[in-house]
Amino acid sequence: MTLCWVDGVAADSLSVKDRGLAYGDGFFETILVKSGQPLLLQRHLERLTLGGKRLGLSLDLPLIERECRSFASQMGQGVMKLIVTRGDGLRGYAPGHDAQPRRILQASPLPAYPQGNAEQGVRLYACQTRLAEQPLLAGLKHLNRLEQVIARGEWQDSDHAEGLMRDTCGRVIEGVFSNLFLIKGGVLLTPDLRRCGVAGVMRAELLALAEQTSIPARELDLQMSDLQKADEVFVCNSVYGIWPVRGVERLNWPVGPLTRKLQSLVRGLLDI
Amino acid sequence: MTLCWVDGVAADSLSVKDRGLAYGDGFFETILVKSGQPLLLQRHLERLTLGGKRLGLSLDLPLIERECRSFASQMGQGVMKLIVTRGDGLRGYAPGHDAQPRRILQASPLPAYPQGNAEQGVRLYACQTRLAEQPLLAGLKHLNRLEQVIARGEWQDSDHAEGLMRDTCGRVIEGVFSNLFLIKGGVLLTPDLRRCGVAGVMRAELLALAEQTSIPARELDLQMSDLQKADEVFVCNSVYGIWPVRGVERLNWPVGPLTRKLQSLVRGLLDI
Repeated sequence: MTLCWVDGVAADSLSVKDRGLAYGDGFFETILVKSGQPLLLQRHLERLTLGGKRLGLSLDLPLIERECRSFASQMGQGVMKLIVTRGDGLRGYAPGHDAQPRRILQASPLPAYPQGNAEQGVRLYACQTRLAEQPLLAGLKHLNRLEQVIARGEWQDSDHAEGLMRDTCGRVIEGVFSNLFLIKGGVLLTPDLRRCGVAGVMRAELLALAEQTSIPARELDLQMSDLQKADEVFVCNSVYGIWPVRGVERLNWPVGPLTRKLQSLVRGLLDI
Repeated sequence: MTLCWVDGVAADSLSVKDRGLAYGDGFFETILVKSGQPLLLQRHLERLTLGGKRLGLSLDLPLIERECRSFASQMGQGVMKLIVTRGDGLRGYAPGHDAQPRRILQASPLPAYPQGNAEQGVRLYACQTRLAEQPLLAGLKHLNRLEQVIARGEWQDSDHAEGLMRDTCGRVIEGVFSNLFLIKGGVLLTPDLRRCGVAGVMRAELLALAEQTSIPARELDLQMSDLQKADEVFVCNSVYGIWPVRGVERLNWPVGPLTRKLQSLVRGLLDI
């Protein structure tokens, strides 16, 4: 059995009454573990805290942090998936006020992405699946992920390492499992995620790094025409860091200097 | 332990790797059971079939039907919840082609709704939570139900038996756990569910009944102003049947003759 805990105890199953299963009533975090350490853990916990506030789910953050650190130290290296749900429920959508949130930790090996992804960059598949606008859930990494499941099912070939997702109005939002950045005239641009999308931990880290290193950065609405005019494009997440984007459909970009600079900064964070 | 089966075997837990938990990658049906019979089962299975096709999940319908009938006969009476998920998954959104869908059956007692709901009618709470427009998922009873969880959390008082949900453009769509019908000039009107909402089994049954009994019926976009002009309003689902709606916010309706006629037809279906 691969390493797996439910509520702090080794287990590989959970109650069929869990509201995570019934309604997707919960959140998850995918955390890189190296040398027994969960990386960027504070940012993952911050997003979880925001989600808990938004959905009225009171979380014992110190307990979750302790469990994550202890689990990571047993894992050593790999990807640690943390799921937090509203726990068991009776029938009906009403969230109980005495709900006992459930924590699930699952270990998996480091994903075997081709080295070329980070070096030569990737091509994105232009997904037909559009993201619905739901400001109440936007930004959160909640368990309602059917849009991503449908989008990821759109391509099977290995020519596309990621997919590009737009919202129902055509705005460019994110990758299926990554956030998206554009560089135009030395400015770092990333889609505004107030209507839909997942506000990634690496995205937050990059925006903070940009501020620290005086790279101008903005969150704003972006269209395909902005992508067309971009000097550089890249995708990012907290497991693989940064992949330069070489192209999507008929658009092509070189791997530019600012992307390389950010890659080297991020490597310092993830290659410990 | 209450009656519960996982993949046809008595169990009250399931694998933490289930994609129903990870992504809400699956569907559910809430089926009324009386005298050991699952009621309106064919309509529940039809909706499941539609969902399976839409999400590329190949379901063994004869097996699911056999399990439902067998489970219902053991239950005798109550509410049977069927969850079907894409089964266990590895990390990542991509739906595996060799996925083994998982069936979960849970029994619960008949809900204790006040008798007045069906007799004198109910008031609806006008939810602030709006339904996002996602045509790819519209109509399906999938496991991504955070919008309903948030909406149901908006009111706790017992003056409101159900909530009224609109979409992000303000169209009137449904209840939190019911479908909505209006009657205007002898015509049965119900919101079009191509952009969002759950196409309920009782809604389908009522549209079929209307056709059989020559009651004119239409599915169309409806606004709050249509609700204002309605002669009668009711909500319905496959467990409680029909509840006349007496009011929402400042709007009020009488319990009208067509609602009573449909209630008596539905009682014939559910009170076996």
